[in-house]
Amino acid sequence: MANKLKLGIPKGSLQDATIALFQRAGWEIYASGRSYFPTINDGDIECMLVRAQEMARYVEHGALDAGLTGNDWVLENLSDVERVTSLTYSKQSRQKVKWVLAVPEDSPFQKPEDLAGKIIATELVEFTKRYFAEKNIPVKVEFSWGATEVKPPMLADAIVEVTETGSSLRANRLRIIETLMESETQLIANKTAWQNDWKREKIQNISLMLNGAMAAQTQVGLMLNVKNESLKDVLAVLPALNSPTISHLSNSEWVAVNTILDESTVREVIPKLKAAGGTGIVEYPLSKVVL
Amino acid sequence: MANKLKLGIPKGSLQDATIALFQRAGWEIYASGRSYFPTINDGDIECMLVRAQEMARYVEHGALDAGLTGNDWVLENLSDVERVTSLTYSKQSRQKVKWVLAVPEDSPFQKPEDLAGKIIATELVEFTKRYFAEKNIPVKVEFSWGATEVKPPMLADAIVEVTETGSSLRANRLRIIETLMESETQLIANKTAWQNDWKREKIQNISLMLNGAMAAQTQVGLMLNVKNESLKDVLAVLPALNSPTISHLSNSEWVAVNTILDESTVREVIPKLKAAGGTGIVEYPLSKVVL
Amino acid sequence: MANKLKLGIPKGSLQDATIALFQRAGWEIYASGRSYFPTINDGDIECMLVRAQEMARYVEHGALDAGLTGNDWVLENLSDVERVTSLTYSKQSRQKVKWVLAVPEDSPFQKPEDLAGKIIATELVEFTKRYFAEKNIPVKVEFSWGATEVKPPMLADAIVEVTETGSSLRANRLRIIETLMESETQLIANKTAWQNDWKREKIQNISLMLNGAMAAQTQVGLMLNVKNESLKDVLAVLPALNSPTISHLSNSEWVAVNTILDESTVREVIPKLKAAGGTGIVEYPLSKVVL
Amino acid sequence: MANKLKLGIPKGSLQDATIALFQRAGWEIYASGRSYFPTINDGDIECMLVRAQEMARYVEHGALDAGLTGNDWVLENLSDVERVTSLTYSKQSRQKVKWVLAVPEDSPFQKPEDLAGKIIATELVEFTKRYFAEKNIPVKVEFSWGATEVKPPMLADAIVEVTETGSSLRANRLRIIETLMESETQLIANKTAWQNDWKREKIQNISLMLNGAMAAQTQVGLMLNVKNESLKDVLAVLPALNSPTISHLSNSEWVAVNTILDESTVREVIPKLKAAGGTGIVEYPLSKVVL
Amino acid sequence: MANKLKLGIPKGSLQDATIALFQRAGWEIYASGRSYFPTINDGDIECMLVRAQEMARYVEHGALDAGLTGNDWVLENLSDVERVTSLTYSKQSRQKVKWVLAVPEDSPFQKPEDLAGKIIATELVEFTKRYFAEKNIPVKVEFSWGATEVKPPMLADAIVEVTETGSSLRANRLRIIETLMESETQLIANKTAWQNDWKREKIQNISLMLNGAMAAQTQVGLMLNVKNESLKDVLAVLPALNSPTISHLSNSEWVAVNTILDESTVREVIPKLKAAGGTGIVEYPLSKVVL
Amino acid sequence: MANKLKLGIPKGSLQDATIALFQRAGWEIYASGRSYFPTINDGDIECMLVRAQEMARYVEHGALDAGLTGNDWVLENLSDVERVTSLTYSKQSRQKVKWVLAVPEDSPFQKPEDLAGKIIATELVEFTKRYFAEKNIPVKVEFSWGATEVKPPMLADAIVEVTETGSSLRANRLRIIETLMESETQLIANKTAWQNDWKREKIQNISLMLNGAMAAQTQVGLMLNVKNESLKDVLAVLPALNSPTISHLSNSEWVAVNTILDESTVREVIPKLKAAGGTGIVEYPLSKVVL
Repeated sequence: MANKLKLGIPKGSLQDATIALFQRAGWEIYASGRSYFPTINDGDIECMLVRAQEMARYVEHGALDAGLTGNDWVLENLSDVERVTSLTYSKQSRQKVKWVLAVPEDSPFQKPEDLAGKIIATELVEFTKRYFAEKNIPVKVEFSWGATEVKPPMLADAIVEVTETGSSLRANRLRIIETLMESETQLIANKTAWQNDWKREKIQNISLMLNGAMAAQTQVGLMLNVKNESLKDVLAVLPALNSPTISHLSNSEWVAVNTILDESTVREVIPKLKAAGGTGIVEYPLSKVVL
Repeated sequence: MANKLKLGIPKGSLQDATIALFQRAGWEIYASGRSYFPTINDGDIECMLVRAQEMARYVEHGALDAGLTGNDWVLENLSDVERVTSLTYSKQSRQKVKWVLAVPEDSPFQKPEDLAGKIIATELVEFTKRYFAEKNIPVKVEFSWGATEVKPPMLADAIVEVTETGSSLRANRLRIIETLMESETQLIANKTAWQNDWKREKIQNISLMLNGAMAAQTQVGLMLNVKNESLKDVLAVLPALNSPTISHLSNSEWVAVNTILDESTVREVIPKLKAAGGTGIVEYPLSKVVL
Repeated sequence: MANKLKLGIPKGSLQDATIALFQRAGWEIYASGRSYFPTINDGDIECMLVRAQEMARYVEHGALDAGLTGNDWVLENLSDVERVTSLTYSKQSRQKVKWVLAVPEDSPFQKPEDLAGKIIATELVEFTKRYFAEKNIPVKVEFSWGATEVKPPMLADAIVEVTETGSSLRANRLRIIETLMESETQLIANKTAWQNDWKREKIQNISLMLNGAMAAQTQVGLMLNVKNESLKDVLAVLPALNSPTISHLSNSEWVAVNTILDESTVREVIPKLKAAGGTGIVEYPLSKVVL
Repeated sequence: MANKLKLGIPKGSLQDATIALFQRAGWEIYASGRSYFPTINDGDIECMLVRAQEMARYVEHGALDAGLTGNDWVLENLSDVERVTSLTYSKQSRQKVKWVLAVPEDSPFQKPEDLAGKIIATELVEFTKRYFAEKNIPVKVEFSWGATEVKPPMLADAIVEVTETGSSLRANRLRIIETLMESETQLIANKTAWQNDWKREKIQNISLMLNGAMAAQTQVGLMLNVKNESLKDVLAVLPALNSPTISHLSNSEWVAVNTILDESTVREVIPKLKAAGGTGIVEYPLSKVVL
Repeated sequence: MANKLKLGIPKGSLQDATIALFQRAGWEIYASGRSYFPTINDGDIECMLVRAQEMARYVEHGALDAGLTGNDWVLENLSDVERVTSLTYSKQSRQKVKWVLAVPEDSPFQKPEDLAGKIIATELVEFTKRYFAEKNIPVKVEFSWGATEVKPPMLADAIVEVTETGSSLRANRLRIIETLMESETQLIANKTAWQNDWKREKIQNISLMLNGAMAAQTQVGLMLNVKNESLKDVLAVLPALNSPTISHLSNSEWVAVNTILDESTVREVIPKLKAAGGTGIVEYPLSKVVL
Repeated sequence: MANKLKLGIPKGSLQDATIALFQRAGWEIYASGRSYFPTINDGDIECMLVRAQEMARYVEHGALDAGLTGNDWVLENLSDVERVTSLTYSKQSRQKVKWVLAVPEDSPFQKPEDLAGKIIATELVEFTKRYFAEKNIPVKVEFSWGATEVKPPMLADAIVEVTETGSSLRANRLRIIETLMESETQLIANKTAWQNDWKREKIQNISLMLNGAMAAQTQVGLMLNVKNESLKDVLAVLPALNSPTISHLSNSEWVAVNTILDESTVREVIPKLKAAGGTGIVEYPLSKVVL
């Protein structure tokens, strides 16, 4: 039988962002509303939609060869898997998320130790238990089926909850007293599959292309023309990281400069390039960047 | 301080149906998108949105005086609460739901005993463990974060899952081999609150009005005129359950008949009433029925 | 085998209005987006969604026992079916539709005869051909796949098209020169099925309830109290059609009047009733009216 | 020429609520998205959509015979019009709105006098100027094109703004220091039109029906049966306002009671009626109530 | 009068895809909801929305100079038109569609001959009649107004229906027994218009740009830098089809490679390019490709 | 304290277009539905949403350092501000808008003088008053709260109203008799802020980037290869405005041409380039163009 890579796609809040990332990387995944087995335009891969919370469990057992899930859920399950690459994206942004210990704004709690004997609600029960056990703080950890941030003070004394910006915590008048973990999306692989040459290379190629597509989202291409005499000034403006490509033009007084920039720096770089003698400055979008 | 009844409204799939039921019963509950504390136009009541899965836990502990949740989750938590009334409604219909043991259509499993040593995925972990323990069948019960019906056979051998019509199970090519429990929505109360006269009466009035509003959804009013000589024939057509009200008219040859009927029988009763001599037959909608 | 009535529901523009009418009449029809066989909560009936244009063809041949379609399509197909009842409702209103012959506003055509030798586009090809053949006017009738009103003058010389208010014709700068037919929805039955007692009675009951539900949409109930001395004045205000029910009250100086009215007349009747001595005037909605 | 009543319908926030109120009162107004001249199913009336702010101006001048607008805008324009009836409804609720003077929460201003020499932003410029002039407080009143509540403290020192619940003011951290006016919707008429018998009677009938439809929204019908011996107890429970109708039944031991109640009291009345011996208690909806 | 090209745009399922294709090709077509004469930002062209089924008829007669429609409808009408270019796109994909002969899964029919004497429902009546006539198989072909795939076995014995993936046929439990035709979108022209130099050149330019825009949807640009010594290895990886452009850089040890690739191959090519010594690999999107 | 630029974003019809333009220019502005203080990913800038009508007033007074608004509202307020750059975009298009004097189609008014003594409704009261005062034409100018074009002839004799295409005026049967002003969006600055070096440079950089992003929307990049012998013919086809960049290829018989073109000319240029010997013609999108 032909080789097949069984790949888990996270169902739920990461699903659309993950499918969009694969599309930019070169794979069309089509998840119809009803099926948990999305189609993918690559005969080598079989996809399955799996909750991020359960992904590491199934990759560890080998039901899946590889999958994408948050680092948080790998830790919650203490799963023994190969961590191939980190891909810092989430539902809304391209930042890591944090799991924090939060208490009501007007409560007296200032540090984890103050919660001895109290009830802590969280979706991340095992991780939270280990955290407090390591510190020898006796607490009661209760599983929360969601809406965790609304529970204190009526239904719990404190919570361990995920946050990107802290705005939902603030809206519920909660105060962070400790950050327990930072987490980001990871491509993980089953350890046996990782020993298989075909599967490992396939997973590595997926990793390369996902990273190439992610890099392209924050980078842009920039082309400009400059007289030889101003080239040095122009190059001084450009970030040193990626050396620009300089090509000869037919008119030998001029050269063309082509480079890659962080999109976030463009609004400062272009005015400086113009001041340094650049002309015909053009920014163009990129689909993939592999340096 | 004035008396207050702390009332839990089930968040999620039952939420809209519950709020609509309260509205028909006479209470406006307004749940804004962001708050977990809906307002209610009754100064005696404080509402809180709580997941059905956690409702019984909080009613038992007294964080809430009363709440609505499924019988299934009361059993899952083995919560010690007062069961005030059953209200057979769900997200989609007015039928009880069933929790069933289901296996892949083409699997060899025919009865619970065949699953000895296998993995069973479910949201109802404790109930399922007790069920198999009572039968002395050793199984591994794994918590499922949703999409349970898609897990067999790759990720589990069997599932315990809730179903109204069985259509989702059939769509996933699963076969039911046992019904473990039937469940319906219940109004439950904290046992201490139930001893308090003011709270108990308030809860009982809520129960009376919710039942009155539910009854009105399946019943209609029917008025018709009939000559004295045909009255017997007309009454013979009407269901015996609720005796109709017969009033004298100014024209002494005629009487007016006013009654309440199951809406589902009207399409058969009206043609018969007409044949029996009824005239001016009018059906009108009801908002509450308390017999 | 048990008796079954095969009933055709018109797919398309009449579908929602038809299903809503059946609901008000006492039958829940559930048409999922994908299936052409809607479920109905009556074990005696099997539904099928069929285009109104093809309904009469299939009822005539007996593939269906009964169905709802426009009179226009019965005539187009010259189908030999039993016409059980007319139900004047359409997608938007409760008026009959008209099939008209329309020409460009600024064309010279004034009467059907002026179109001799011209091209006429229509969805109703056979009916149109017969119409002109009977008048001995030679024309070329072309089948139009929709958007007929936009075809003149580029793609046709005149059209035969359906209209409720004429607004679409006016918007396309067309002028009506003749009305060929008025049409409304009809419940039709297969002639053999009509001979079967069980099927005929079932169809007649459906007809009774559909008419009862339609009548209720334009009628309301009205109750008021009046002193004996003013009764005559009050009754003079009420339309003579349906005699009101007058009942004795405990207070023998007063009587209660209960009647049914066209909703469209209420805004004129209530002020007059009040002027005539009526008090406690209450209007209430009706679900069915069978006089 | 036939008589015609030119009626102004408020465009904007009150539009949908007004059209819905007319529909319940017996008039279908159809406002297509593009036209400012809605159709109405009454040959005696011509409708025009006009901003509430400008309504009184046009009714006063006679361009319209009658119209609906808020009392606030009548006062802003000091329009000389006939005030026919008040209709307490607004976009969201059935409460009066208030125009208040509000300042930043943490500002030193405590009373109107503290604002001498300051800038006040408002949509109600003339009314506000008169208010401060009467108190001899010199202020600068600036017209605000909306979003008034966001202007302090950057763009204004205080505002005069409309509010139903105060929530938008609180969300913008503003503090109310004075209520300048309460306002509700009014049906107003041109004074000359009011002298015309036909127009006045038409306007009065509209007023009667609008009030009848509004009353029906907060009232319900209640029917029950009761034995003669319990009738007194049952009547004691019912509010004294509207005397119930009591009718004889064929079975002379029982009477039927039919009454009208405030919907908001039903949830308290029904349990008491049941305790007092009422049976077969049925609540039904009303469409109009004219006492 | 100035030259004008009368161009037919297919109304209905192809409409949005066609307008989007023209936009990518450089023409903005704006079809307001109500008009059948979309505006286009090209003074040389007049557009008209016409059903795909009728397009070939009107192009043949000269009411339109050119238009887009499926090959299927050209054949159905046996229209005598100039076929300018094929453009393989459809509502959902970029594949050809098939017209197939399908029968109920559990019917005995295995080949066209088995349908002698049977009823065949289809939208493509004339083509289907010719097909069976050529094979000397006598069948009754009935025009179907849509929903053809639901007709067997109740309303027809077999169907001739269009399909992209066969999924709708399978969902209705139909089995394909023959493919009668493959079809794709075509740009067709009136034969007289094609003789006119101005019109032919205009149509050819439209054809060039539509093809250029379609090509760009499946192709991407790729730039990379490589040392002279690795250039041969890098070139070996690139598909031979389009020769890449190699330009000198200022640093004479390096060259820049710029090429065009099928998007579907990129996910395999980039890892190989990297392995072969490519660096600074950048993929960028293309809007048009004309080789 | 660090430098901060207070920047006004126009709320309402220009808001989405403005935020989109800033995004293309390199700034992410996030306006949540409820707040009037959008966040921006630039620590140097503080944004505030302000109505276009009030923008110039607040920039003049210094509550804002800079802002975007229409030239019309600068003139209405006679605001004394620095006009930094014009940015011709509006809600729907990239054209200037016009303020025109319009009268009913069938009115006798032909020129402004004909309106002496008449009522003119407009949102631009001060500008209109000045316009007529300069011409010594006495008119009554009334403020209109919107829907101005529907007022004549019932509620006003003429209007001064903004229009892009005139279609709304035509739909209301109005005739333009004079254009009073053309207007486009402008970036304006407070005169004191403009004297501050840091603020002026920040504003100028914003201006440069907004213009660069706008230019990119109507321009595209074009690359092609050509043999040396055809280069002259190819260059003759290209517009003279921006001189193309010509680079040497490894194969010395060929050169690569890279240029920037107006998107609207591409559909005519590409066919000519191909005819002139261009090959491998590729169009690619641009994000910014600074020449």
